[in-house]
Amino acid sequence: MTADGAQPSPVDGPVVAVVGGGQLARMLHQAAIALAVPLRLLAEQPDASAAQVLRDPLVGDHRDLHRLRDVARGSAVLTFDHEHVPTEHLRTLVAEGVVCRPGPDALVHAQDKAVMRQRLTATGVPVPRWRLVGTVVELADFAHSVGGGPVMVKTVRGGYDGKGVRAIDVSVEATADLLAGGPLLAEELVDFRRELAALVVRSPSGQAASYPVVASVQRGGVCREVVAPAPALDPDLAVQAQRIALDVARDLDVTGVLAVELFETRDGRVLVNELAMRPHNTGHWTIDGAATSQFENHLRAVLDLPLGSTRARAPWTVMVNILGGDPDGSGARLYDGYRHVFAHDPGVRVHLYGKQVRQGRKVGHVTVCGDDLDAVRERARYAAAHFTGTASTGTAFTGTASTGTVSP
Amino acid sequence: MTADGAQPSPVDGPVVAVVGGGQLARMLHQAAIALAVPLRLLAEQPDASAAQVLRDPLVGDHRDLHRLRDVARGSAVLTFDHEHVPTEHLRTLVAEGVVCRPGPDALVHAQDKAVMRQRLTATGVPVPRWRLVGTVVELADFAHSVGGGPVMVKTVRGGYDGKGVRAIDVSVEATADLLAGGPLLAEELVDFRRELAALVVRSPSGQAASYPVVASVQRGGVCREVVAPAPALDPDLAVQAQRIALDVARDLDVTGVLAVELFETRDGRVLVNELAMRPHNTGHWTIDGAATSQFENHLRAVLDLPLGSTRARAPWTVMVNILGGDPDGSGARLYDGYRHVFAHDPGVRVHLYGKQVRQGRKVGHVTVCGDDLDAVRERARYAAAHFTGTASTGTAFTGTASTGTVSP
Repeated sequence: MTADGAQPSPVDGPVVAVVGGGQLARMLHQAAIALAVPLRLLAEQPDASAAQVLRDPLVGDHRDLHRLRDVARGSAVLTFDHEHVPTEHLRTLVAEGVVCRPGPDALVHAQDKAVMRQRLTATGVPVPRWRLVGTVVELADFAHSVGGGPVMVKTVRGGYDGKGVRAIDVSVEATADLLAGGPLLAEELVDFRRELAALVVRSPSGQAASYPVVASVQRGGVCREVVAPAPALDPDLAVQAQRIALDVARDLDVTGVLAVELFETRDGRVLVNELAMRPHNTGHWTIDGAATSQFENHLRAVLDLPLGSTRARAPWTVMVNILGGDPDGSGARLYDGYRHVFAHDPGVRVHLYGKQVRQGRKVGHVTVCGDDLDAVRERARYAAAHFTGTASTGTAFTGTASTGTVSP
Repeated sequence: MTADGAQPSPVDGPVVAVVGGGQLARMLHQAAIALAVPLRLLAEQPDASAAQVLRDPLVGDHRDLHRLRDVARGSAVLTFDHEHVPTEHLRTLVAEGVVCRPGPDALVHAQDKAVMRQRLTATGVPVPRWRLVGTVVELADFAHSVGGGPVMVKTVRGGYDGKGVRAIDVSVEATADLLAGGPLLAEELVDFRRELAALVVRSPSGQAASYPVVASVQRGGVCREVVAPAPALDPDLAVQAQRIALDVARDLDVTGVLAVELFETRDGRVLVNELAMRPHNTGHWTIDGAATSQFENHLRAVLDLPLGSTRARAPWTVMVNILGGDPDGSGARLYDGYRHVFAHDPGVRVHLYGKQVRQGRKVGHVTVCGDDLDAVRERARYAAAHFTGTASTGTAFTGTASTGTVSP
């Protein structure tokens, strides 16, 4: 039971450096503990989500090459909690011998939406119609070419969780201001039935594995809910989505997790919306719902270890994000939600990220697995809504603890 | 994704102090991360198993009252990785206002085998026949009273993993030396069919939950393998075992996990062998095989939060310990076993503890869940044997990676 007589460094796995101290790095650490793979973290703040839970985190800016060198030193591989590390810094690190997984030539496709659209289009991957526009005339031309209605405009770099993305109507809005910051990616507004995500993991030696395709519910560009597998998804379309993700992973030489967010159109096609090359919100269900979590498989992939089974452990798994509620609310800690949620439902899985609550911020998620989709979804929604603070006000979901009934 | 703007202490759960830096504290931390409950660790060594994976571990001796006060300071509750903290120190801490869970009045029954035997006997719990013996004559009398054959003798305090426990034949062995160190607990040698374990968890407010009763295979006093649930166990006997564990937990006012190790006798009874008041080796299967792991439920219990479901997630779960192999072997790191084990079986779950390999030392465990007991057990044994280093020599199990066949 005790570590008597242990040498100074009894850990025997290679060190994995992680840039970014968010909840993804935090959950990566949980998986790393089981594998006895030490993580070396570069976090933005000393009390960032991941920095709270592992030993001797480094603190610094992910745009500071010196700090990137610091975290890479002595590590076998460098990987990421987010895609905001400057591509040029990654190229410098690679030139200096640092093993980056994914590498900069892959990662740039998750950093730069124009590069991503160009590459996917060139390789025949189905995407919404798009154009890189630098002037009002180009934007108006593009809007006209896709039917004249509203179009999506996206900043090319730096957006996440819906930031840097909006729908505009070129015929009524002043668009010159939008373009003052440089070219934008304009895309057709897709008439989609729902959003899907295909999550795959790929190792440097080329082994790849695909998780079941999931349905995600987004509001305001933020993921709210994920259902695994996507209910009533045409099997051919599921295979097509998985094939797209595997092909993109191979074509871009992705290592680690690749999440491909897709639109399922009303006419039965899938179109690639976004790419992420790291563990992804649409894969959080795998912690409790799959044989191997996306976090463990990301580690196994970047270490070039054989990948774990991606099989679902239950017929249905639903993950619902806990978003920060009204900051003028009761002031209750998230922790205080446990007493009700756990008493109400002993089977719900709760993951809190140790983050300060702010309106709309992802501060945790809940997962429920089971045989009946409606029941599973209601249970997950009920628990998340209680933490979010919406359960008691009836704005999102209402329910009573004594009976367990939930009215969406 | 980033912790921008986070306050210095964004963690909102109460702090749990843990004494002991072994693998139990390490796995407790994995559960604590999900709950956003910060652990404050007192470890024996700076690189003890748990000290490697969490922030700012304290290092010191669990017999040092000052260090116990240090780890308890600012924590909501103090709990344990092992039962070796002196009872008198715990009583002092409690008198000073520290909340110890389990408390010293409960824990002493896991620390002192004579106190345990006296209490269980007084409350009618079935145990092997026993006597506290201080002289050669008393020992001989006891041996005679149970049939004159070999008897078990146990040190009253400090034993674990078979240490301090042996069978002796009073008629042929010199017993005076044995008794030189003080009174021993003598017990009849039980003719058991197999060993069982009933693991329950109990909160201060009295909620209690029972995991399925498991069968454990011990060799040399060390747990080697656990099968959940115990195969072909008489349902009445299973209920009886769970009832004994729940009754003992209530009677002793245990908080947290209580593991009750039992003998199933050939004549269809269960007898209590040992008690442990902490997450236990016979409960490691719950990480991958139960709705809520023993580690999360231990935390929930000591924090007096409602307990999580103890339901098994698969018909069968088998856990096999990885014991340190021959120290004169190849010198390979445990980590190097992943390449074969993961390629051979993508569904096996491996947990390594970051401990130096020493002959017979518990350095990790593997878990396999599934529908077919024989297949599940073979897979778990095969993986563990590969790490242990016995697979290739054939001393424990042999097999070939290409076919996956295993001959016990």
